[in-house]
Amino acid sequence: GVACVGAFTRDRTQLYLPRGPLDVYRKKASFCWKDMTLFIEGEDVFKFKQRLFAILEIDPLFARQPGEDVSVERKRELTFLRCKQLFRYDLLTREEMMQNPWKTPVLNDCLGMYDWSLGAKFFLNKGMFGATVGNTGSKRHDKFVQDTENMMTFGSFSLTELSHGSNTRALRTTAKYDPSTQEFVIHSPDFEAAKFWVGNLGKTATHTVVFAQLYTPDGVCHGLHSFVVQVRDPKTLLAMPGVTVGDMGKKLGQNGLDNGFVMFHHVRIPRENMLNKTGDVTPEGRYITPFKDPNKRFGASLGALSGGRVSITRMALVNLKLALTVAVRFSATRRQFGPREDEELPVLEYQLQQWRLIPYLAAAFALEHFSKSFFMNFVEFQIGLMMKDSSDRQAELGREIHAISCAGKPLGSWTAQRGIQECREACGGHGYLAMNRLGDLRDDNDPNCTYEGDNNVLLQQTSNYLLSWLQVKHSIHFRYLSRVESPLESVNFMDNVSSILQTHFTAASVEDCMDSAVPLAAYKWLVCFLLKQSQEKLDQERASGKEDFEARNNSQVYYSRSLAIAFVEHTVLQRFHDLTHGEETPAALRSVLQRLSALYGLWTLSNHMATLYQGGYFSGKNPADFVQAAILQLCTSLKDDAVALVDVFAPPDFILNSPIGKADGELYKNLWSTVMQGDKVLERPSWWKEFCSDKPVIGSLRPKL
Amino acid sequence: GVACVGAFTRDRTQLYLPRGPLDVYRKKASFCWKDMTLFIEGEDVFKFKQRLFAILEIDPLFARQPGEDVSVERKRELTFLRCKQLFRYDLLTREEMMQNPWKTPVLNDCLGMYDWSLGAKFFLNKGMFGATVGNTGSKRHDKFVQDTENMMTFGSFSLTELSHGSNTRALRTTAKYDPSTQEFVIHSPDFEAAKFWVGNLGKTATHTVVFAQLYTPDGVCHGLHSFVVQVRDPKTLLAMPGVTVGDMGKKLGQNGLDNGFVMFHHVRIPRENMLNKTGDVTPEGRYITPFKDPNKRFGASLGALSGGRVSITRMALVNLKLALTVAVRFSATRRQFGPREDEELPVLEYQLQQWRLIPYLAAAFALEHFSKSFFMNFVEFQIGLMMKDSSDRQAELGREIHAISCAGKPLGSWTAQRGIQECREACGGHGYLAMNRLGDLRDDNDPNCTYEGDNNVLLQQTSNYLLSWLQVKHSIHFRYLSRVESPLESVNFMDNVSSILQTHFTAASVEDCMDSAVPLAAYKWLVCFLLKQSQEKLDQERASGKEDFEARNNSQVYYSRSLAIAFVEHTVLQRFHDLTHGEETPAALRSVLQRLSALYGLWTLSNHMATLYQGGYFSGKNPADFVQAAILQLCTSLKDDAVALVDVFAPPDFILNSPIGKADGELYKNLWSTVMQGDKVLERPSWWKEFCSDKPVIGSLRPKL
Repeated sequence: GVACVGAFTRDRTQLYLPRGPLDVYRKKASFCWKDMTLFIEGEDVFKFKQRLFAILEIDPLFARQPGEDVSVERKRELTFLRCKQLFRYDLLTREEMMQNPWKTPVLNDCLGMYDWSLGAKFFLNKGMFGATVGNTGSKRHDKFVQDTENMMTFGSFSLTELSHGSNTRALRTTAKYDPSTQEFVIHSPDFEAAKFWVGNLGKTATHTVVFAQLYTPDGVCHGLHSFVVQVRDPKTLLAMPGVTVGDMGKKLGQNGLDNGFVMFHHVRIPRENMLNKTGDVTPEGRYITPFKDPNKRFGASLGALSGGRVSITRMALVNLKLALTVAVRFSATRRQFGPREDEELPVLEYQLQQWRLIPYLAAAFALEHFSKSFFMNFVEFQIGLMMKDSSDRQAELGREIHAISCAGKPLGSWTAQRGIQECREACGGHGYLAMNRLGDLRDDNDPNCTYEGDNNVLLQQTSNYLLSWLQVKHSIHFRYLSRVESPLESVNFMDNVSSILQTHFTAASVEDCMDSAVPLAAYKWLVCFLLKQSQEKLDQERASGKEDFEARNNSQVYYSRSLAIAFVEHTVLQRFHDLTHGEETPAALRSVLQRLSALYGLWTLSNHMATLYQGGYFSGKNPADFVQAAILQLCTSLKDDAVALVDVFAPPDFILNSPIGKADGELYKNLWSTVMQGDKVLERPSWWKEFCSDKPVIGSLRPKL
Repeated sequence: GVACVGAFTRDRTQLYLPRGPLDVYRKKASFCWKDMTLFIEGEDVFKFKQRLFAILEIDPLFARQPGEDVSVERKRELTFLRCKQLFRYDLLTREEMMQNPWKTPVLNDCLGMYDWSLGAKFFLNKGMFGATVGNTGSKRHDKFVQDTENMMTFGSFSLTELSHGSNTRALRTTAKYDPSTQEFVIHSPDFEAAKFWVGNLGKTATHTVVFAQLYTPDGVCHGLHSFVVQVRDPKTLLAMPGVTVGDMGKKLGQNGLDNGFVMFHHVRIPRENMLNKTGDVTPEGRYITPFKDPNKRFGASLGALSGGRVSITRMALVNLKLALTVAVRFSATRRQFGPREDEELPVLEYQLQQWRLIPYLAAAFALEHFSKSFFMNFVEFQIGLMMKDSSDRQAELGREIHAISCAGKPLGSWTAQRGIQECREACGGHGYLAMNRLGDLRDDNDPNCTYEGDNNVLLQQTSNYLLSWLQVKHSIHFRYLSRVESPLESVNFMDNVSSILQTHFTAASVEDCMDSAVPLAAYKWLVCFLLKQSQEKLDQERASGKEDFEARNNSQVYYSRSLAIAFVEHTVLQRFHDLTHGEETPAALRSVLQRLSALYGLWTLSNHMATLYQGGYFSGKNPADFVQAAILQLCTSLKDDAVALVDVFAPPDFILNSPIGKADGELYKNLWSTVMQGDKVLERPSWWKEFCSDKPVIGSLRPKL
């Protein structure tokens, strides 16, 4: 174990962990959790988070009891009130945000750790509505943004319809321009075209950005455009004439957020409400656009969405971290069975429990670095957009970010989904108690798998990008150029596709596998192999006479879909490998980080072992044996670090809100105390007379046969 | 398509499916869903189910709205009232049950399809309490059973404690005999020994079977025994003196069931309340038992639990069926994208959607046959117990049933867990709406993974059984006997372990793989390989000086755990293969059933492909290519049967309670209609003034830095 003493910021909040049963593991850790926290967060962000947590903890409006049963109606009210309070706190000013753009996702992380509904409500108004209007509108729309920032109005974002989600081009809401009044008439042809799933629209939103098919008076449809439409009167919160707006009802999770629907019955809005960056209609009704190719315009108008996937990858990661905090602390204090009758071991000592949880811990650290570094790539891209950078590099950066985000969101959300489920099961029955929060984490994480693009649909975007690189590479060769280069270097290794495909697994022992260089090399082969296979499969489908649409659909499973997943896993691993082997990583942290990197790589790679054998990268018994043995050895080597590793990312107890996950490790005391403070816990039920009197006559209602 | 007309029972309820958008697929089906229903259920059981469903639908006490937000308190009340009503209906008399034991799980299925909390509340009282007292007590305990059957009292079952679940031997509640009053003193030494998770104990139970360490006046501890303890006064539902009994609070699901805890403060109960089949205390305080070996007695006293795993396997399957009904009907009516702008395809037409759902459909049919045939094996065993059959066969049957049930529950519950999650994601956003029930199914299914034995812990029981067979086989050989035989024949093939290990994958084309004989042969090799590997790993751990406890723990992951899973998958597949290739299966159903069997086998086998390569059963690229291509071909070949296949097991719409899963396939109409009938759906929120006035001053609460 490593000594880990002394404060490292002036603010002493949460700096010290309380003593208790977890001390045993904390003392055994190979590194200092405070040093790791500083390395990963940086002091400025760490303090920002602690201040924010302290604010929420001290404000009675944010008080809560673990596992309390709150109605959907009350949840929506509480979330609104808390969101309103956030306006008063103004936790992150525009200046602070510009100074360190990373603080925006950090704020989102923190609000989400408290409650995702609150984070979503806040950011859908400020980010989704505000940024969409700001980025896709023009000066004349500033007042809409201004009004939401002061909570004079409340914003939302209406894209999805009841019968159309992924296929956005098929959306059916119309916006017809009427030059006689210089208005657009927004209309839903029928309820299947009702906007659906719109966050904030259920109860709160007064305004919404509506995506609709634009028609000019000449009857021409110019495709999807967006419009600011007022749906409720800010003075009364009553619906505007012609607007049927309401609440969709209970969801699996995030019930503090009021998702809603809206139908428009010939609703008239001023011409100026059209968000006109990529296309506009003149007062007399003529369509004008800076884009010649309508496909490009469509892409640009949806461009505002790409940030969503970057955020979601991070949001899923936060859920995984919270679940791991609960499950690892539980596993370190829950004792069951042992070598002798009188000695029970913490379940974390069992190989099986280590193998269930510790790879997810490795994934959390790998995804932490990925989500952060990738966000900074996205910021660079956004700056390019603002600067109107029209270089090839900027365009290519956009495509690469699109491709990585379209696979990063699936990877992040599925890893979290599976990890949370594993954590829940690893906590046994206690994981099934609502108060321990694993259920909420799972439920709140779940939409990350399907919104802002269904995971399986998104993966096709990534594989299409990779397959097109293969095309580019061929054509570049044709032009006597030889390098494959993307701005983020994610595909550069594909330059050597043929030599990579000649490589084989070469580790000669388990010890040889203990570095992430081994799975990284395997991933390079894997991506190249799947790329080639996918292209061949596609060619074969086409050769058999299939249209492109069908040929692509038939080459997803085992081909393009696997390719996209392997590609993004490679990207995440490459970045984590580089970090953990880089000069900037403090020497005292390198060992544990490198073990995490090796474990993450081997563990995700082990899902592809059949393909590695199939394509001949693996042969014989040794490769799989070595990989599996290395995974288990790394798990065992990390089990004494596991508690310290979750200490690095665990929020304060108040935020975590899980008795079995509390920092003092007093598992049973915390659990029992919460149970005993439950509502009417020891009272007889209000319906006790139904038991005590009017006893049922057995069979009295039995129907005649 | 196959014509499927005419009634096949006199009772016309639910015989005809309503016309609608699903007709397209129903007409394309290769078989008649009614014939399949009759083949699988039998007319008697089918009518029993329909009658039961009709009763619930007509009784206003069972009325509900999809997705309605019901408080935990109200859910517990409603579940109690409905349970009380079941006493009046007396749906399954003892005579009917004896005549056809299968009707007991069918009743449980039906109540569970309506709501698992109700099924659990009903069976915990009648089955768990009633059967435990009946089977492990004696004549003197008949009144306890009688009283619960008339609802004069209400029963529960207290085994698990706050700090001990899986390790039942370490339970700490004590029962000390006091000869001066001829009473037992039941005591919880501290809150960590509180009985925890006890179903019905939160609000309703008046009596509970308590497992406690028995002490005789000589101070000797005789290990765990069970006692009937009154915890509440049936006249008032108030707690008895010295009993602290209460409600655990909200769970992830099954919130209609009041799980509770109880602590005993020196609670005195009559000597006669000890359940004395396997051990008793004389009035003067002497311990007597028919068992010489206390380990055997312990096993027998927990024997009453083995039926739980058999039931849970079935319960999980029911959840999977319901989720598949929703997801398949949704996929057949949800259209998105298409080859041309004006033509969108049902998402079921996409290879990816087929691959996500149809293997689970195959699993549902395979597990249907397994859970039913295995239940009948269990009935045979129970009859043997009642008949006091002391043959070797009966003993061996008990061990085999224990081993299969300890892996069958994990297989069933995990297949359902993953399948429901896949169904939820496959329905996109609409799957995230509570009203469509996929969330409830997931939440209600979840405890199946951890209660009545955590899945991962249970699997060790199965692998221990298999490893011990290997020992037996060796010793039998030694005695010049050559056959391995178990009553249910699940391990018989292991007789040829060495020749099986010589086999290889021999299919020469995709077409060769289209029968379940191919994966079945592979599974036989796989089980033998993993058995040998596990034994070698265990020997190796021991040789390196590890104690047995540690050696076993270190040979779980990739070895014994995989062995247990492969073994039970083989068992399920073998039974389904035999059924689908048997003479008794109607010719018109054979094609679809055989395709389901092949798909189930190949799909589960595909999770083990790395091992098949690792051990040399697969070599080269072909085997994995063939298996994958065969899976996709089978999915495509089954997609036109998918709707008819869910029609076979779908309950009436009222029971399914999912707008997007309704039998008429009017996806959007049903969804919209349910949304619009939601609570206060179009009203402004009660807290509207909080938005309209008292506007927040931005930054007014911003803390000074």
